[in-house]
Amino acid sequence: MSEWAEIRPVEFEDGVLRLLDQRGLPGEIVWVECRSATETIRAIKDMVVRGAPAIGIAGAYGLAADAANARAASASTMMKRVETSAAKLRDARPTAVNLAWAVDRALAAARGAADAGGEGRDGADDIRDELAYEAEAIAEEEENACIAIGAHGADLLAGAENVLTHCNAGALATGAYGTALGVIRGAFDAGESLHVWVDETRPLLQGARLTAWELRQLGIPATIIVDSAAGSFMASGQVDAVVVGADRIAANGDTANKIGTYSLAVLAKHHKIPFYVAAPSSTVDLSIPDGAAVPIEERNPDEVAVIGDRRFAHEKAEVSNPAFDVTPARLITAIVTENGIARAPYARSLSKT
Amino acid sequence: MSEWAEIRPVEFEDGVLRLLDQRGLPGEIVWVECRSATETIRAIKDMVVRGAPAIGIAGAYGLAADAANARAASASTMMKRVETSAAKLRDARPTAVNLAWAVDRALAAARGAADAGGEGRDGADDIRDELAYEAEAIAEEEENACIAIGAHGADLLAGAENVLTHCNAGALATGAYGTALGVIRGAFDAGESLHVWVDETRPLLQGARLTAWELRQLGIPATIIVDSAAGSFMASGQVDAVVVGADRIAANGDTANKIGTYSLAVLAKHHKIPFYVAAPSSTVDLSIPDGAAVPIEERNPDEVAVIGDRRFAHEKAEVSNPAFDVTPARLITAIVTENGIARAPYARSLSKT
Repeated sequence: MSEWAEIRPVEFEDGVLRLLDQRGLPGEIVWVECRSATETIRAIKDMVVRGAPAIGIAGAYGLAADAANARAASASTMMKRVETSAAKLRDARPTAVNLAWAVDRALAAARGAADAGGEGRDGADDIRDELAYEAEAIAEEEENACIAIGAHGADLLAGAENVLTHCNAGALATGAYGTALGVIRGAFDAGESLHVWVDETRPLLQGARLTAWELRQLGIPATIIVDSAAGSFMASGQVDAVVVGADRIAANGDTANKIGTYSLAVLAKHHKIPFYVAAPSSTVDLSIPDGAAVPIEERNPDEVAVIGDRRFAHEKAEVSNPAFDVTPARLITAIVTENGIARAPYARSLSKT
Repeated sequence: MSEWAEIRPVEFEDGVLRLLDQRGLPGEIVWVECRSATETIRAIKDMVVRGAPAIGIAGAYGLAADAANARAASASTMMKRVETSAAKLRDARPTAVNLAWAVDRALAAARGAADAGGEGRDGADDIRDELAYEAEAIAEEEENACIAIGAHGADLLAGAENVLTHCNAGALATGAYGTALGVIRGAFDAGESLHVWVDETRPLLQGARLTAWELRQLGIPATIIVDSAAGSFMASGQVDAVVVGADRIAANGDTANKIGTYSLAVLAKHHKIPFYVAAPSSTVDLSIPDGAAVPIEERNPDEVAVIGDRRFAHEKAEVSNPAFDVTPARLITAIVTENGIARAPYARSLSKT
């Protein structure tokens, strides 16, 4: 298995979006190439790429790839295509706001180029270039945001020995460095001797597969546990802090994240353990007042019933598979963005980020 | 797949203990035969049979099978064998007290027969007969206990529409009828239109595999969810009660049960949802004052890292796999045994059971 110190799961070169297929990790290293919006949407829906910031970056690059590989004799033909593709791409998955945010931003840049540029083939090329440029800018900004989150968040973990995280909010989820793992990485680099409890994170096992693997490459000690064991480790005093990422943060601080996050927040509250959310400001959605307005994606029951090649539940068994839940702001000790550490009341602190 | 209304996973005939292999259910119906203590211990350790009451019954039958198939020219030779086998059997798994309880009870019966009976081959046969008789009595008493638990517990679920359970505390776990599922079954038979949320119960998926299957055969509507989703369903008002089984209940009511039970109890408390434990009195261990004295079994990390035939975690990843946790009595609304409904203070109410 090839390993590298800096994981970068999203690449773009010569008009092709390349995604490190996260479904097979850590056992298989496979890259998926996307040359159109349709291929990118498929990759996002199937979770070849996942994690709110990484989905956003992939969405922007996917729009750039779509334009790069589309024929268009004029800027206006190109813009029609870009508008249509953008509308489809932004809805590929509903919960993470980063996807719509990044696609809308890339679309706005393309519109700007269309307004400023020429009409014919050159105009179409200007739009292609602008989309690639804007996607690159988004990727770079998100990486810088993660590094800043790590620096801010490190302070929160001063003195902590055991930190628990859920799902994967590392480089694989963000393009580079990570959000929750960015905080852990920041603290580790600052000299904290941390150990991380990694929730395996059913149904898709992003913790066991991805987070444990990333931490291993960073040299940070980590232990995988089943999700339901977190409370028991808290009760025995073995968890000093919980750090998770986010898929969408409402204006009041309510946070949608991987299913199971809410349970962890309640457990942390019960055990008086700080519960931190780490996310770039692109995850903050000031347009919705609270978590009730976040659409929660219900995914295929087979993600739960079938693991690997084996069906565990009876084939006629009913399964409910919400991919996310909402943690109310009152259970969140602090929200770390690239702009600093926000604390309650979040309606005020987040609006400044 | 063959199905039957009354599941009986433990059988004993002609000196052979037959166990329905729970590892392959519901996909594969395979019976494992045990003719010795060694074979029975292997089956218990490997979880061919699991669930505290069922392990107890299997332990007693395993001792009977061991004696039935052992050569012994005298009662004293037979008793030496029985004593040795009993000592090994009672330690096959550490957390559920029912195993030691049932084996000790069978052993005491054998000693009684040895004291009362003759010396030679007839004396050895008396011991064999007594062991089979006592094991049968234990199995019958545990079944009657479950039916009584169902009758008592049904009252607790009056008016409840959605009940959540963890792991499997049905007929497969108890020999017949079930404890937590006995309560649900009792309420359903009493006319409650119940729906059951079934925690899949990692790592061994007893909920997704066994509980959902049992409920299906009983015609009780059920939906499998990942363990970490329980809190989210509680928050949205979709859980009216939680009912679980137990592996050992201390004198003060602290209850050891499948890993994840403690988290559920905290979540139920947070959402003001009643949390019930159902178990036969053979699970109550008045010899230990509280949960701190319950030995918690740490099982093979591969139960977490490998699912089906596939290893999901990196092969060098650390895994912690405690099989049980302890729920403090203060989080338990009531404990249902065959003797009725015990409530706090349990030190008093349980001592009367």
